[in-house]
Amino acid sequence: MKRIGVLTSGGDAPGMNAAIRSIVRCALHEKLEVVGVLRGYDGLINEEIRTMDHASVSNIINRGGTILKTARSAEFMTREGRKRAMDVIRKNKIDGLVLIGGDGTYRGGIALTEEFEIPCIGVPCTIDNDLNGTEATIGSDTAVNTALEAIDKIRDTATSMERIFVVEVMGRESGFIAMQVAVGGGAEDVLIPERKFDVEEMCHDIVEGNIRGKISWIIIVAEGAAKGEAIARQITDFTSLETRVVVLGHVQRGGSPTAQDRILAARLGAEAVGLLLKGESGKAVGVVSDEINIVDFEFAVRKKILETDKIYNLMKILT
Amino acid sequence: MKRIGVLTSGGDAPGMNAAIRSIVRCALHEKLEVVGVLRGYDGLINEEIRTMDHASVSNIINRGGTILKTARSAEFMTREGRKRAMDVIRKNKIDGLVLIGGDGTYRGGIALTEEFEIPCIGVPCTIDNDLNGTEATIGSDTAVNTALEAIDKIRDTATSMERIFVVEVMGRESGFIAMQVAVGGGAEDVLIPERKFDVEEMCHDIVEGNIRGKISWIIIVAEGAAKGEAIARQITDFTSLETRVVVLGHVQRGGSPTAQDRILAARLGAEAVGLLLKGESGKAVGVVSDEINIVDFEFAVRKKILETDKIYNLMKILT
Amino acid sequence: MKRIGVLTSGGDAPGMNAAIRSIVRCALHEKLEVVGVLRGYDGLINEEIRTMDHASVSNIINRGGTILKTARSAEFMTREGRKRAMDVIRKNKIDGLVLIGGDGTYRGGIALTEEFEIPCIGVPCTIDNDLNGTEATIGSDTAVNTALEAIDKIRDTATSMERIFVVEVMGRESGFIAMQVAVGGGAEDVLIPERKFDVEEMCHDIVEGNIRGKISWIIIVAEGAAKGEAIARQITDFTSLETRVVVLGHVQRGGSPTAQDRILAARLGAEAVGLLLKGESGKAVGVVSDEINIVDFEFAVRKKILETDKIYNLMKILT
Amino acid sequence: MKRIGVLTSGGDAPGMNAAIRSIVRCALHEKLEVVGVLRGYDGLINEEIRTMDHASVSNIINRGGTILKTARSAEFMTREGRKRAMDVIRKNKIDGLVLIGGDGTYRGGIALTEEFEIPCIGVPCTIDNDLNGTEATIGSDTAVNTALEAIDKIRDTATSMERIFVVEVMGRESGFIAMQVAVGGGAEDVLIPERKFDVEEMCHDIVEGNIRGKISWIIIVAEGAAKGEAIARQITDFTSLETRVVVLGHVQRGGSPTAQDRILAARLGAEAVGLLLKGESGKAVGVVSDEINIVDFEFAVRKKILETDKIYNLMKILT
Repeated sequence: MKRIGVLTSGGDAPGMNAAIRSIVRCALHEKLEVVGVLRGYDGLINEEIRTMDHASVSNIINRGGTILKTARSAEFMTREGRKRAMDVIRKNKIDGLVLIGGDGTYRGGIALTEEFEIPCIGVPCTIDNDLNGTEATIGSDTAVNTALEAIDKIRDTATSMERIFVVEVMGRESGFIAMQVAVGGGAEDVLIPERKFDVEEMCHDIVEGNIRGKISWIIIVAEGAAKGEAIARQITDFTSLETRVVVLGHVQRGGSPTAQDRILAARLGAEAVGLLLKGESGKAVGVVSDEINIVDFEFAVRKKILETDKIYNLMKILT
Repeated sequence: MKRIGVLTSGGDAPGMNAAIRSIVRCALHEKLEVVGVLRGYDGLINEEIRTMDHASVSNIINRGGTILKTARSAEFMTREGRKRAMDVIRKNKIDGLVLIGGDGTYRGGIALTEEFEIPCIGVPCTIDNDLNGTEATIGSDTAVNTALEAIDKIRDTATSMERIFVVEVMGRESGFIAMQVAVGGGAEDVLIPERKFDVEEMCHDIVEGNIRGKISWIIIVAEGAAKGEAIARQITDFTSLETRVVVLGHVQRGGSPTAQDRILAARLGAEAVGLLLKGESGKAVGVVSDEINIVDFEFAVRKKILETDKIYNLMKILT
Repeated sequence: MKRIGVLTSGGDAPGMNAAIRSIVRCALHEKLEVVGVLRGYDGLINEEIRTMDHASVSNIINRGGTILKTARSAEFMTREGRKRAMDVIRKNKIDGLVLIGGDGTYRGGIALTEEFEIPCIGVPCTIDNDLNGTEATIGSDTAVNTALEAIDKIRDTATSMERIFVVEVMGRESGFIAMQVAVGGGAEDVLIPERKFDVEEMCHDIVEGNIRGKISWIIIVAEGAAKGEAIARQITDFTSLETRVVVLGHVQRGGSPTAQDRILAARLGAEAVGLLLKGESGKAVGVVSDEINIVDFEFAVRKKILETDKIYNLMKILT
Repeated sequence: MKRIGVLTSGGDAPGMNAAIRSIVRCALHEKLEVVGVLRGYDGLINEEIRTMDHASVSNIINRGGTILKTARSAEFMTREGRKRAMDVIRKNKIDGLVLIGGDGTYRGGIALTEEFEIPCIGVPCTIDNDLNGTEATIGSDTAVNTALEAIDKIRDTATSMERIFVVEVMGRESGFIAMQVAVGGGAEDVLIPERKFDVEEMCHDIVEGNIRGKISWIIIVAEGAAKGEAIARQITDFTSLETRVVVLGHVQRGGSPTAQDRILAARLGAEAVGLLLKGESGKAVGVVSDEINIVDFEFAVRKKILETDKIYNLMKILT
């Protein structure tokens, strides 16, 4: 192992830069050469590669986004595309890859390692916290806090105007962000893909609350559970009360990473380099109980079960 | 003048609480009694009134929303409603009113002072900064900074993913927030109600930029100029490039007020009380060139002209 | 168990209010009566007690500080003081206490439960994260992020002015905050009570770095390890380079709690009420590996070992 | 005018980067060549010069500090030093300079333009807002908001612990930041260089307040008025009450600039380039009543009078 490559792929997440910094500097410390691959797997295919030194990653620890940029690659989904990627890897004498991203990124790693002889290690970096083998993915803590700050602001208006707000947060298949901000934001209810939900029942609650004088509501909706607009319309149709919708959208992907995300990035980046040096491949790093945890890509991408009953009930008790 | 009332009306804005605090404490300092009217003009009609003392406004200077709550009142729009409001004013021995809000709030004040003998002074508090007679309204600086922080986050993703983002900000009739955040956020373009805009021309720019390698764009849209969704669709139709939409919505109304908004609230609240004591009525307070400025309600609500050519051109040069 | 009391004691920490909210509402949900004790153990002795209902804890989830206020009590350290406290507990028919705070708060609980028949459960709430039996204490995540944001700002100036900054953070006996922000902030070095440190060696590094052109440094100092001023003077004496000192101080205790701290507060508050109902006493709640963990007060207050070698070395590699 | 230089000098301030961006891009738009001078006047003397293009200033609008770095230059204070600087200017064919900074920066400009034939235009960028001819300097709005956020956090603890806090803010000769945050933060008192202050009288107020039950105080001290530590000691000596000191220090210089500071930077940078093109020299740009205002360097650096009686009295009424 003389020369490694690092790439970020899929949706960007806060802390990707901190992870790149850790990987590059740890690799240099181990006397490895490091190249950065731009635009994820697409850039690998197109040989968008640049040498990284110590200074390449200066002053990025606190910045959102990724200096290596990211993309989703249709071509890499094909056997032909991956073959071309592998040609670039060989041509550039890359002996191992660190893949920073989520589910899709790891699946790319699975395909690559199954078909070719190139060691790949994954670093979990996605706002959805939906990978197995780690209690937290890099970026999820920041995304939750960003959404929470927005909800705190919405609460000011909801209370002052006495209105019902439906706030749509990210999470196509995962209710992680939604559940966290619902509890943290003191929301009145939350809809997530992992739980059946009865909008009509909620509307009954709203009407009853209204009679008791409770007029301001915040309802969190994970984008994968429903459209915020649709839920708001249902509520208005049923209760005749005015509703307002906020779709937080991509604001949740950006911003300076929290301490937790930066420290996680530092630790997991270092670990990934260490695993490559040990000759490992097809593994993802993670943290469980504050200890490093290593799992196979296949396990990491398996549907993560989010236990929600207890926390949902607690949320309802607390509102 | 022995006893004054204070109310907040219309859309809430950051700094309303700081204004209430200033009015209450300045009035108490002048040995006046003060009552707070809940829910704006609606609460006036319904006699939702409570006595305010020094402690009533403790620890609110930094809080968004309004402790007096706010509402839009259909009943007050009728002569009958205003008559009932005036009965409540008389019954509660209120000798003068401070009205905190925007355009609609002031129009309420105009109707009230024209029809009855009750002195009213307005304090400009709206995120749109669309009142005449003041360089800034309380709340507009905070709203602009809140939107700007969101745009900074979006920029992280826009740059990393190399996408076109359309960001819809508040401003039904005013492009103030949109223009400020476009310049402050380094946006590529901005659509506001005050300017004609050629979407097709912008699409040409995008295509040309794309050829030169400029792929990430942020386009700000004031809600009064167009729907963000519609503009995004037009861009995609024309350029075949992917777009993302963010609608910042009510997040912009909440949050802790900036220093400027708090200081403005302190000064203008004090001035409003002073005017009532001097026997003035039908006036709005404001600040011009860092000096207090007093104008008639009628002037304050006249359509404010936002000069945009120079600043728009500067924005285009800077991108 | 019909009626419980809740108090906050010792230094305040972000999330105390969120914990109070959880305890009060969970207790009410279980049909318990709840009283809040003001000013910690001092307020207990002086019978500063007020009944808490659902509305008593509205809109506090996102606020720093504690609505119950906090104090350090000299009198409670005496047997006589505790006897008086117990008299108040009996007089007010309080059947159990939830004690929110850190080390000193728990020691109060130990004394109380040893001497009298009053069930006490502890909720860990301290910025230092220095209690055993829990991976995180409520407030520590917020404090770390607050300090980190300050360090990000200092980095702007340190880089622009090319200066050496010594930043003193909180932590009298614990280097937790210092270590976290050193790694998260990309600091060049860190002094904590848990590690021997050779200032002269660091000065040699600085001089050598200076020769290579590295001129801006950020050095984190936990208040328990050294005075920031003293370290800065040593550096200047040794290297003849200018230094600047920042003492972050009590800023680290305040502010709106992070999502993690709020969710932890929600969960641990609920658990504390549950334990009282089960007849438990002399225990502290906590979280390990995202699961609730319950330990004796005696174990909780035992000196927590902070493993620092690995993370310190990583920090040095990454700078 | 074919080629201009830009430098930042003195203490850094948020918005310097936004100003550099505006100057560079406006100059390029006018077909000028632009060079950046590193490390202020020192870098000019040492010919630390680099060509700036459109991309040189990408993604810096929201960043604190200055990419051109800054320094204080002893050598430039000598006639000999300035002569060497002028040699570099000539050698590099620089036809005009934009000087970004405060008082000291402008004085450098005065010396340079008096002794040599090099047009210089100043852009006001200092957190102290102490330059004549402009209602606001770039950076002051951000610094005030940064200090205010810290004070909001301190207020959480001050209220919870019922303590007296003395908060020292920046401002060696100017009480601008101190006064703004005192009013905006709802402080109980403020000490600034511009006003005589009787600490003993304040201590009497504290004692009296204490008797009435007012126990938590926040007292703001501008560093130029007194040392926070000294004031705290005086208070404790006189009142026997515990005090806490926070010295915000260089945190106030950093951070992402506010909307106001970014927009000001955009406008003033553009104006500075325009003035150079018009053949002007020895002038500083500014804003008065939202209009561009141009003054001589000599006027700009004259001691700015800060009117404080009215705002100080208002602050006292509001606490």
